[in-house]
Amino acid sequence: MNIGLDMMGGDFAPLEAVKGVLHYLSEQSTPGRLTLIGDEGQVRAHLSDLQVPTENITVIHAEQVIDMHEHPTKALKEKQRSSIAIGFHLLASEKIDAFISAGNTGAMLVGALFSIKAVDGVLRPTISSVIPKENGKTGLILDVGLNADCKPEQLNQFAVMGSVYVQQILGIDEPRVALLNVGEEEGKGNILTQAAYPLLKENKHIHFVGNIEGRDVLLDSADVIVCEGFTGNVILKLAESLYEISERQNLEHEYFDRFNFENYGGTPVLGVAKPVIIGHGISHAKAFKNMVILAQKMIEKDVMAKMKAELEA
Amino acid sequence: MNIGLDMMGGDFAPLEAVKGVLHYLSEQSTPGRLTLIGDEGQVRAHLSDLQVPTENITVIHAEQVIDMHEHPTKALKEKQRSSIAIGFHLLASEKIDAFISAGNTGAMLVGALFSIKAVDGVLRPTISSVIPKENGKTGLILDVGLNADCKPEQLNQFAVMGSVYVQQILGIDEPRVALLNVGEEEGKGNILTQAAYPLLKENKHIHFVGNIEGRDVLLDSADVIVCEGFTGNVILKLAESLYEISERQNLEHEYFDRFNFENYGGTPVLGVAKPVIIGHGISHAKAFKNMVILAQKMIEKDVMAKMKAELEA
Repeated sequence: MNIGLDMMGGDFAPLEAVKGVLHYLSEQSTPGRLTLIGDEGQVRAHLSDLQVPTENITVIHAEQVIDMHEHPTKALKEKQRSSIAIGFHLLASEKIDAFISAGNTGAMLVGALFSIKAVDGVLRPTISSVIPKENGKTGLILDVGLNADCKPEQLNQFAVMGSVYVQQILGIDEPRVALLNVGEEEGKGNILTQAAYPLLKENKHIHFVGNIEGRDVLLDSADVIVCEGFTGNVILKLAESLYEISERQNLEHEYFDRFNFENYGGTPVLGVAKPVIIGHGISHAKAFKNMVILAQKMIEKDVMAKMKAELEA
Repeated sequence: MNIGLDMMGGDFAPLEAVKGVLHYLSEQSTPGRLTLIGDEGQVRAHLSDLQVPTENITVIHAEQVIDMHEHPTKALKEKQRSSIAIGFHLLASEKIDAFISAGNTGAMLVGALFSIKAVDGVLRPTISSVIPKENGKTGLILDVGLNADCKPEQLNQFAVMGSVYVQQILGIDEPRVALLNVGEEEGKGNILTQAAYPLLKENKHIHFVGNIEGRDVLLDSADVIVCEGFTGNVILKLAESLYEISERQNLEHEYFDRFNFENYGGTPVLGVAKPVIIGHGISHAKAFKNMVILAQKMIEKDVMAKMKAELEA
């Protein structure tokens, strides 16, 4: 197993990325091989300063960096020697088994969609977010922004991909799938959810429990919440802001601490053939460590192949 | 001025409605006339028990009640002697100047849309919710569920109606209008928001400040947030659940207390020719009092006529 990590992505790169690597290597009993992509001089200096054991590490030099604010498609095309472009090249050519970056989100999405093939039969890949529930459990919501407009069939596929993901990664057996909606009864909703409901109801690959409303999002009404990427994105960013508000207001409450998305690492792109994980720009060591752990788990459990099997069957 | 109040609507009617009336009459220096619609025996018994001064009160007997779970259109048609049906009849025939109920929301919407005419030129009436901002200020978000699917032109009208409302009712001069979206830059979004943006930008009747994201909803980025009713409804119900969570978790924090929507009374239906205010089923005395105060303010400021003027100009 070989996990590729962009060392130049995020506001605190490369130092926090190197710290994350250190924590990963010291905490995991059977860590995978790591391929660190970035400015070799800087990366090696930090590795040396922090006395990171390097026998399982390869450093690949990247002389360019794609900035947070660059145009994704243009930057990926013009900066072939950037850490993100090299990462996708290594992933596509099977030199690494997963690629992680906390850099330019748009470039990561473009790379995932165009360098790495979608799983056969997937209409559109998707990105998800974990949802901290009031009762201590964790759920998944998808899509959270990759697909601002969706067709009913896409929501139906998100349900399958989300189910496989929470089974394999969150360890939830027979996950309950719900459709986010404006009312509980069948027949409620906008044109999209009205059309998606019957597809979800008849889908034998998921355990569909019906509609849920906004008030249920933070409760334990479902393990997988399916919605188009517009509403999902608004919810995710609102949830992120709750953590910031709780910090500014000195809430210091266990539940609101769980809205610190650094706890969960990053967001995998689901529906592409290989694990691609996108981190938040403000990622610190903890987030980098958790993203590498997530990548390892996705490779070990062969999540992508399991999604393919469920979508094809 | 004569304000009609359904005494039978809500989980704690008619007692909490009568208490709300008492608080309104004792706290307002120049209260309006009230028309209380409901079971006359019960209403008069409570008025007498609570020693409510009745010189400004008319009680209209309604022998039927529309239940919370009845089918709105069917119930309104079949229960002509219900408090909600009588209320709309009185409002349509100008016996009262506003109508308030915490009863069956669907029946209230059907009544507002079909008994009371829409303001000339309004494509679709809308319902809004106040948003408590972290900095202590209050904003408005609309639509929050009446229009689960919207056209760009509707969002543009919501912007005008919301602006007039917050100017007149919340006292905010030159309110900043933002479009809820998945990115800040012009051109971002789903098909709807991409098409709505240029309309809002060119609308001379509003002060448009561009797109805002989910993370900005609780901040002071805008006074009026415009979105379709699907996302708005999910946000509103999620916000309501935050108050319930803060109660269950004993947060006891000033900011989260402001998510108690009883503080704000009810939701007016905007874009219809007369004030119709819909309360939450769990309304207590405070919510009833605040809804009557809101109705009085809407009548005094002639909010509906001002909306009409802005939409026509």
